[in-house]
This record gives sequence, structure tokens and C-alpha cells, in this order.
Amino acid sequence: MAARFALVIDPAASDDPRTDFADTFTVIDPGAPALSVSELSTQRGDGIFESIGVIDGHAQEADAHLQRLAHSARLCDLPEPHLVQWSQAVARAAESAGDGEAVIKLILSRGIEHGPTPTAWVTAAPAADFSGPRRDGIRVVTLDRGLDSGAPARAPWLLLGAKTLSYAVNMAAIREAHRRGADDAVFVSSDGIVLEAPTASLILKVGERFVTPAPTGGILHGTTQLSLFEHLEARGASTAYETVPAAALRTVDAAWLVSSVRLAAPITSIDGLPVAVDAELTASFNEYLLSPRV
Amino acid sequence: MAARFALVIDPAASDDPRTDFADTFTVIDPGAPALSVSELSTQRGDGIFESIGVIDGHAQEADAHLQRLAHSARLCDLPEPHLVQWSQAVARAAESAGDGEAVIKLILSRGIEHGPTPTAWVTAAPAADFSGPRRDGIRVVTLDRGLDSGAPARAPWLLLGAKTLSYAVNMAAIREAHRRGADDAVFVSSDGIVLEAPTASLILKVGERFVTPAPTGGILHGTTQLSLFEHLEARGASTAYETVPAAALRTVDAAWLVSSVRLAAPITSIDGLPVAVDAELTASFNEYLLSPRV
Repeated sequence: MAARFALVIDPAASDDPRTDFADTFTVIDPGAPALSVSELSTQRGDGIFESIGVIDGHAQEADAHLQRLAHSARLCDLPEPHLVQWSQAVARAAESAGDGEAVIKLILSRGIEHGPTPTAWVTAAPAADFSGPRRDGIRVVTLDRGLDSGAPARAPWLLLGAKTLSYAVNMAAIREAHRRGADDAVFVSSDGIVLEAPTASLILKVGERFVTPAPTGGILHGTTQLSLFEHLEARGASTAYETVPAAALRTVDAAWLVSSVRLAAPITSIDGLPVAVDAELTASFNEYLLSPRV
Repeated sequence: MAARFALVIDPAASDDPRTDFADTFTVIDPGAPALSVSELSTQRGDGIFESIGVIDGHAQEADAHLQRLAHSARLCDLPEPHLVQWSQAVARAAESAGDGEAVIKLILSRGIEHGPTPTAWVTAAPAADFSGPRRDGIRVVTLDRGLDSGAPARAPWLLLGAKTLSYAVNMAAIREAHRRGADDAVFVSSDGIVLEAPTASLILKVGERFVTPAPTGGILHGTTQLSLFEHLEARGASTAYETVPAAALRTVDAAWLVSSVRLAAPITSIDGLPVAVDAELTASFNEYLLSPRV
């Protein structure tokens, strides 16, 4: 949905000793013109982002998202974000969100072409209603990501572990999934290793174990997946990061795409092949994910 | 350099019968806020672009660029641009450019998130002075693009033949080239086939033949390369599109990166190995490329 709140950040140096950054924030009308056409985010998708789920004004796992923003910045040779400053901006956006579910987006762009500093802003918008997919599930298709599983280590300039603004391929993959009559996609490496969804992580249930593809540089380490694994481990369940061959998707006992805003969506079919849905377990996942998490 | 002219286009349907689109253009201050933070170009690099060289107010090969914009739109499921409308916008931007060299950028974004239409704009800026690289040349390094040469045909959702705004990897490749003491990069597929530079096409001289990697979906078909090949053919030279293995780069007689604004930059070394520069031929290339071309 359209953003209802936006603030522009004047990015502080990462060693700025201040403790209050309120005067570096400018609240703006989220629908009004705010960015120049010379913005490199808009010209070249040259920047990084995070999407944070918000429940009743509480930003979920803000620290994990900020740590990942800093990680993306390092991979992209962007100035290190000042985490206290960004954390205060997130708090400010969360306050604006009110009751119910919302999404906060953090964007750090390389800035104006030939300009002196990055551009940064934070928005908040009501979340779409995802109760349907959380309960009834989603159909997914596997799509070749074109890259082999050795590419991330061999070619760090492909920025595979960074959450960059260059998401055109992710969006095209979701359109391709729709064309194939599915709701979402799961990327597979050209050598047949399961990766991630365009905007979510994949969790599989294999017997009594919960398995997710190992984030070895080629995929993002999902904050929601991490949080759910901690939750499962605290309840005595067995979890694992593994190299998952695409063929293994045919024999899973259950599967979910998990992400910060849609949360846990059970997968009902993969490439047309039905996957069993554990409704009770899925409900417990979403109950946990909807509870306040730090 | 910073844009000195910008206009926003209200995109017409591709079958709009009008012949004068002047009232669909809004000239704006290129440095002023113009785009909302909900722009999908800025959030996800979700859009397409073209860069057109301008010489003394003449937009070089505007039609070829507009055709490629339309091709990119089709690959990205964006509404077909109205070519008469865009052509008039280019003419308007070219008029603003004055004498000397300039660059016009065309951007077609998917628009505001959940909004009804794409967003489109055109900018003009003075070109940087490229007389140095045109005369003295550039050092390049080869960088693995991670994708094998079968990926474009197998996985059209990778948008490999589209000039999308998702250029973070292209920019990271140029930064990696700089880290290695070079000026630019040449991408090579994971199975060792030479592709293109992050923002330019590669032309090789092999004996008396001019060769460029075949644009079989995995690379952009360079407008400058096309124009130069036409020029060479008209003068009786032999040109060819070929599958070029990376090893063949070691034995070329000369090589250039060619693009719309820097034009023909002779390559002086590839991965540290010297490449001979044909100064006279390079000067003739740039003389041609600087002449008015339609």
C-alpha cells in the first residue's frame, strides 16, 4: 500500500558520537516529490534496502535488519550506516504506524550522481492483508537463477549477499511465476541447488527436521527465517542449514516461504506437485511471528 | 556531470494518434525534488533506460535508442513506449544541450508502487571530457559474470537483453576493475565466453576483421557498435558477430570499448597483458562517431 509516513535522513558518519539524531531527520509528505532525477537509486538501482515488519507500532527485529543493512553497505562499498541514527529513524517510523500490521522500508542510496554523500530515507506503510496466503498457502514454481553455486565466492562483484535496490530480476521472476499460474518463485542455481525466493526465504520440513538452504554468500540470510529457527530450537526442534538439491523439493513433508511482512506462507505446490500443509504448525509459526520480537 | 535539463513525460498509450505531444512534457528543475519515495525505480531498480550521445545539439541515433527502449519494455512487461512522443522529448532535450558534447538519459520506470501508470523522464547533461581515454586508451580486466552462456535463452526472467535500471552489479564491476588498477571491465560468462563491458560493447580487431561478441540475448546490442560496424562495412572492411572465447583476447591485434558517450576507447591492456593501440584507426572511429549520425 502507499506509504503514509516518510522521513529523509542526513546520513551521519559511522563514528559520530551523538546519541540523539532527531535533527538529522526531515519528515516529508510520502506522496510529494522528494528525490531528484539525478538520484543513483533511480538511475541505476545503486543502493541497498531493508523491509521491516511492524506489529502494533513495534518494529520486528530492527537490530537484525540494521546489521544486514550494514553488511549490504560493506559489500556495495557504501559508507557504513550509523546504527544508532538508523535505529532512531526506525523508531520514529514505527511510532507513526499505529495499530495493526505495517511495513517500514529503509533505503540507503549512493546519492546524487557526482554528489558528495549518500541519500537515505525511511518510509512506513500499512501492510497488505496477508491472512489469506498465511492460512491457505501459496503455489510456487522453481526458476533457474542462471548462476552456479560457486559464483558468489568466485565473483563478489555480483553482490549476491547484498540486498541491493537492483531488484528488477526478482520482480520479473514473480511475474513469470504468475504467468505459470503460481503465486511465487523459488530460485535454483544453474547447477541445481535450491536458493531462495525473490523476496523470501525457504524453510522445508523433512521428517521432524526444519531445513533451509545454507546462506553461503549466494543468498540473503533471512531475518524471519533466523528468528523462526531460534523459536523452533527453543522448543526443542531440530534445525539445519544445508545444501538442498532441487530434486529434494519433491519429497519434503511441508514447506514455507517466510519473510518480514507476509510472514510464514505455507507452500501448497511446487511446480504443480502438491505439498502437504500442516495448518496447525503454520498457525503456530505466524502466531510467533506476529508476537513482538527484538 | 549534473543534469542541466529535465522533463517529466506523461506517458501516452502506444496507439495514441496525436502527432504533437508537447503538452505531455513538464520541464522541471533537474536539481529539485521530482520523484516520490514510492517510485519503483528507486525502490527496486524496476524500469529501463537509454543514454544517448549529443553532439552540438544533435541526438546521435535517437531512433536506434528508442527501438532498444521499446525492446527493453517488452522484455520487462512495461507498457510499450510511444515512439513519436519519446522522439519529441529527445528533440526537446537535445535543443537544451547547446554546443559541445552532452548526454541525454531516457528513463521509463514502472511508476509509483500500486500506482496506475509508469513514470517517465528525460534529462540532459554536459558530457564529461573523454578526450583522454579516446586518445590514450583504457586498461581493462575480465570479470566473471557468473552466468553461463545458455542462461539468457533458458531464463528470460533474468532480463539479460534488457537495459534495466538494476545496474548495481555493473557499477560494482567497475569498482572492482579500479581496485585491480584498471579503468574498466569486460564481463565473461562462467563458461568462458566474452560478453560486454558494464556500460559498453567490445570490438576486437583480428587480422583485418572486426569482431564483436554475438548479441544472442545475453548482452545488449550496442547502438555505437552497430553504427561503427555499418561505417566499417561501408568502407569495405569485414565485420562479424562471433562467439569469442576468453582465451582469444590474448591474441587480438587491437580492441576497443565503444559506447554512446565515451565513444571509442582503445584498450591498452587486458588483465595486465598489453594490447597494441592503432592510434590512426581509433582517431578515425571517433571522428566518425562525433559526426552527426541518424
